[in-house]
Order: sequence, then structure tokens, then C-alpha cells
Amino acid sequence: MNLIERTVAAIPPPDEAAMRDARDHQARLTKPPGSLGVLEEVAVRLAGLAGQSPPPLPEPAAVAVFAADHGVHAQGVTPWPQEVTAQMVANFLTGGAVVNAFAGQVGAAVTVVDIGVATDLDAAPGLLPRKIAHGTADMTQGPAMTPEQAVRAVETGIEVARDLVAGGARCLITGDMGIANTTASAALIAAFTGLPPERVTGRGTGIDDATHARKIEVVRAALARHALLASPAEPAEPTEPARAVESTEPAGAAGDPARVGGGALEVLAAVGGFEHAALAGFVLGGASLRVPVVLDGVIAGAAALAAAALCPDALGACVAGHRSAEPGHAAALAQLGLRPLVDLELRLGEGTGAVLALPLVQGAVRVMHEVATFDSAGVSGKQESTQ
Amino acid sequence: MNLIERTVAAIPPPDEAAMRDARDHQARLTKPPGSLGVLEEVAVRLAGLAGQSPPPLPEPAAVAVFAADHGVHAQGVTPWPQEVTAQMVANFLTGGAVVNAFAGQVGAAVTVVDIGVATDLDAAPGLLPRKIAHGTADMTQGPAMTPEQAVRAVETGIEVARDLVAGGARCLITGDMGIANTTASAALIAAFTGLPPERVTGRGTGIDDATHARKIEVVRAALARHALLASPAEPAEPTEPARAVESTEPAGAAGDPARVGGGALEVLAAVGGFEHAALAGFVLGGASLRVPVVLDGVIAGAAALAAAALCPDALGACVAGHRSAEPGHAAALAQLGLRPLVDLELRLGEGTGAVLALPLVQGAVRVMHEVATFDSAGVSGKQESTQ
Repeated sequence: MNLIERTVAAIPPPDEAAMRDARDHQARLTKPPGSLGVLEEVAVRLAGLAGQSPPPLPEPAAVAVFAADHGVHAQGVTPWPQEVTAQMVANFLTGGAVVNAFAGQVGAAVTVVDIGVATDLDAAPGLLPRKIAHGTADMTQGPAMTPEQAVRAVETGIEVARDLVAGGARCLITGDMGIANTTASAALIAAFTGLPPERVTGRGTGIDDATHARKIEVVRAALARHALLASPAEPAEPTEPARAVESTEPAGAAGDPARVGGGALEVLAAVGGFEHAALAGFVLGGASLRVPVVLDGVIAGAAALAAAALCPDALGACVAGHRSAEPGHAAALAQLGLRPLVDLELRLGEGTGAVLALPLVQGAVRVMHEVATFDSAGVSGKQESTQ
Repeated sequence: MNLIERTVAAIPPPDEAAMRDARDHQARLTKPPGSLGVLEEVAVRLAGLAGQSPPPLPEPAAVAVFAADHGVHAQGVTPWPQEVTAQMVANFLTGGAVVNAFAGQVGAAVTVVDIGVATDLDAAPGLLPRKIAHGTADMTQGPAMTPEQAVRAVETGIEVARDLVAGGARCLITGDMGIANTTASAALIAAFTGLPPERVTGRGTGIDDATHARKIEVVRAALARHALLASPAEPAEPTEPARAVESTEPAGAAGDPARVGGGALEVLAAVGGFEHAALAGFVLGGASLRVPVVLDGVIAGAAALAAAALCPDALGACVAGHRSAEPGHAAALAQLGLRPLVDLELRLGEGTGAVLALPLVQGAVRVMHEVATFDSAGVSGKQESTQ
């Protein structure tokens, strides 16, 4: 087996017994049942991932910012010049970006991975040189990457996750940087959900109407080029994901989203970015080590669709940190069945939304370690009847 | 002037120049304009409160948990026995409650204020003995508190805010504990918004249908008893708040919500809890010192309506930490014009939702202190035209 196959094979299904134990434990804590809302389910899911209740505290956390450029930039999908990717990498490395400020506040380390920046980057502390190519190829003209590049990017994501966990991280946070990467994200989300390009293509960092219209057509052209465009006659709601050829898994029933996995690498190669492929591997790597992965915005959402296609159980490691303003992100989260913890119209990327969500994830677990039970604290329970 | 009047007089209007400076500063930071969504407006508002840009970091933070009992408990509005209030105070003081776990995670100190617990409490580190009475009176039978008690409770809240800021706190967080306090909150919110009791009365810690129906009728009876019930012929949307008599302010135009302030103390005395009155003072105290106050759930929302009625500019200090599952909380936030930062179906109280929101507030401000500008980081800006 290759690294991807070995990693997928190591990903456990959710431990149902640990999840039951977690629910039982929560019911004994000094708080009204269910009063922590969504956070209770987060803690239960992490118990299922860890195979124990309470699950270990997701501390310390490590952010990996996967940076790459995109050949589709040539199609005029954004007003930002491509060199901004490298300039922002330099900004991350000197601690000047928003993700640095947020990560510093919550004590998370930031690692930047050059997975395919167009510019040659100087060595620097905090930078992992893992460049696969100087940006992807233009997906409207051919595949964004070769099959070998796609595999190598996923493997790199797995390796980064493993190294961070080996270094002590007990929570992984997805980050990304790459001018034009919301265009590739939209194409991936359209391919994996079957939604039409206009439903999943947003304004990224804030583009005007003309550029937005062009971006939608670019996504449509790329999907058509690679036979990933859902037929116009298909319903607008997510149903049957577009499938790519050369499945490495047994062929599933048509229309079964869980069976798309076989084609996930091909979809990534056709219309993805190196950071998407690496982030998919990062999710698989975290899941295989039973370490939670807090997802950032639309780029991570697109990557998580690929990871879930490769291994549905990888979703058990995923926590949706936030929901961005990008329409494709909401579509991705809906298909993944993940509820975002932070929903503040952020559309920055870098990992910022996920880092903001980290204290919520940690709080959800901390409650299970530190809060007294009704018995231990001598607190009375509800009375059977009030009068 | 008495303490309340002096405090209100010291509350500044938002500093428009500082808010402009904050917006200008944000536009220069290395991120797409507006990409931090709701957090950018939080930072701008705090600049307006502080009168400077960037505003000071809201650190360290201090949580004040105002604990009190409610005479309306006798009406069977909750299945929890009244002694749970005192039992939970003991739990807070030994660090065993959820608010302790969350506060410990973010480095916030927790102070418990006995503002009117029915039980006599032993002295303990972290407990401020400020008991006004052994619980309020039953608001369905008469006023919940005397006018003197209402004033004293508001003053106590002001004093607690002042003492915490004198002790170094640069961010105040509202907390509360009191069995039956969602009933008093619903009555206050109905009085201040003009909404009917069934629109603002929720299930609190989780009550059954029969208790919920009784709770709505108890709120209705209390409001009718004190001539605070909006006429059934009135529209269901918030319009003209019910007004109480004996205004200490010049009478305003009928239907002008800002003029209800004169009656706010009377409304608090009629149907409020000691913790509501104290929290209203806590907001006024923070605002007068230009220190932000992060509001927790429905109890804080009801108190903030009273504070805003006493001094509309006090709203400039308020950040809505979260939106609870209580319907009255959404109504209160809508009337206050505040958007909650965390929205995870929490319904615990204690200050838990506000403490969870603290890193979001701190992150919003930290960005303005730490993030590089396009110029300083050498990052290119948007191009005028993309093709």
C-alpha cells in the first residue's frame, strides 16, 4: 500500500461506546442537560475520535498554512496579483498577518508549508519547503496537476500532520494562502456536490460584479473541460456528485456520495490546488492519529470534501471552525454534515476562522475534565413535579 | 446627584473620530477590506468607547456572577428547587462550574456577588457579600423589590464594576445565577420591548410544556399586576415599550424608546431580580469607565435593556457575547441592536456564553495592534483592473 492507502486504512470509525460514555458523563455534570448546546456534541464527537471519554484536551494546537499558487489566476478571476501569495508567506513568517495575531492569542504555533508557491522562497524559520511545482497549471486548459503531483501533495499533507503530532500537537488547524484559491475551491465543491458553478462561486476577497461573472464562467469551463460539470438538467440541490474515472475503490452505486472516493484524487488533479490536496492529506493524517482537525473556511471545506471522499470516517476528526461568507462553503458544510462554530462573515482565510474557534473546541472538552457532577458538588437535581 | 445619576452623567457618547481612525487603520492592514466581518465592527465600536484607535486590549477580563433568588419561584415556573442557587454559588467558589472551566481557559477571574440569595452564605474567598434581601418578593403578588432595594442593587453593580476595573480588569463579563431568573427576564423584556409574554418566555433550563404554559401565564399576570402589559391590540413587533410611572427624567414623546429611562428603575423594581438591577449597574459602571462589558445571555440582555433605558450611550460599552436559546434573548438583542458573536444554542447562564466570546473580542482588537500594514509588509494591493 502507498502512504495514502495506509493512512486511510488506519482511520478508525467513531467509537460508539466512548460517545455513549461521553453523553452519560455530560448528564452528570452540574448544568442543565443539553445546556451547552452545540458544544456538547463537539465533545461527544471528539470522544468518538479519541476512543475515550473524556477525550484528551485538544492542546497544544498547531496551525499549518499551506501556500500555493494557481494557474487559473491567468483567467482574471481576482484583482490581486499572484505575487501576493509569496508576500503574504513572508508576512506569516515575520508574524505580521492576522493568523499570527489570532494564533498568538490562543497559544497555537504557526507553520507555513510552501506546497506550490509560484515564487522561489528563501529558507526561513517556520517555513517547510515542500514545493511540488511553481503553481498549478491552468485548469481551464488542462489538468491543474499531474496524477503524481496530486498524490505527492496529499502525501505531504499527511506527513505534515504526522510531524506536527509527533512534535506534540494535539489539535491540528487548517490554514491556507493562495491568490485565486477560492476559484479552485468553487470548482472542487461543484464537482463533489453536483451543484452548479453559480451556486458555489463567491466573491473571494471581494471582487466586482464583472469579475464575479467571469469567475463563474471560468469555473464552469474548467468543470466542462474535465467532464465534472453536473448536467444542466440536474436538480440544484446536492444529489449525485460528479465522478472522475479510474476509481481505486470498488465501484459503488451511482449517486452514492460515499463512493466518489475512488475519483477524489482525479478531481483534485483536474481542478484543485496543491493546498487543497495537501489539506485533504492533513485531514487524513490527523484522523489516522485520532487528533482533531479544526477546519477553516471554503478552501478547507473543499479539501474536506476530498478527504471524506477518500475516507468517510475521516469526517470524525473534523470540526468546522467557522462558516465563511463564501456560498460554496455553506454548500460544502451541508454536504459534510458539519455545523460551524463561528459564523461572523469572515472571508480572510489563512486559518483565521479556525483559530478563532479553537477556544470553543477546547472549552467543550475542558468542561468534561473540570466540571463537578451533581453528586460531587452536592447540587440538587430537577424535581419530578413543580407543584 | 446620587451614584446612579453621577455614573450616567460620566458615560461618554461614542467617539466618532476614534471610530473613523479605527476604520482607516483597518483599511491599511494586510487583509482584504472587510474580510474580518463582524469583528471589524466590534473593534470600531471599542475604539469609539475608548476614545482612541486602536482601542486598548480588553485584557485582563473579569467575570462577575451576580447570584440572587426570586420570589416568583413560588409560582412553579421551574422544576429546580430554590436551594440550587446557593449550591451553585458554592460550586462557583470551589471552581467546579462550567463558568470556572471556561474562565480558567481564557485567564479571566471569577467573582461571585451575593446580591440576594435566599440562603445565608458563609464567607469565602471570591464571594462578595452584597445581599440586599433573601430573594425578591413574588412579582405576581406585588413589586419584586422596593424602590430603595432597586436603587441599591443598581448601585452595587456600579460599585462592583468600579472595583474590578480598579483591580486591573480591562474587560468586564456579566455572569448570573438564580433559579427562576429567566421568568423575571421574560417579564423585563416584555416590559421594555412591548412584546407579548408568549413571545419572550422560553423554557429556561429545559421545562416541559405544562410548566412553560404556566410560566407564560405567570409573566402575563405579573405584567398585568404592574400595568406593564402591552395591550393585546398592540402589534406584536417591538414598538412602544411599556412605561412605568414616576419618571425621574423629563417626560419624552410617547413611543420614544429612549425616553423609557425614567421608568427603568420602576420596571426593575416591579418585575426584575436583584441580579438584573445589579447587572444594569454593572453595565453603567463599565461604560462610565470606558471599559467594555461582554454580555452573557437572556438575563444580561434584560439587564442591558434597563441600562440602555437609563442611559442609551451605555450601549456603546456592550458587546453581545452570545445568543442563547431563549426567545426573549433574541428579542432583547434586536431591540438593543447588538449582534451576538457566539450562537451555539447555549442556555446555561453563569456568564458562560460571554466568556466563550471573550477570545473573539480580544482577537478583534489584537488585530489592530499586531497586524502589519500593506506598506510595512511590502504586500501589493488590489490591481485596478484584472485584465
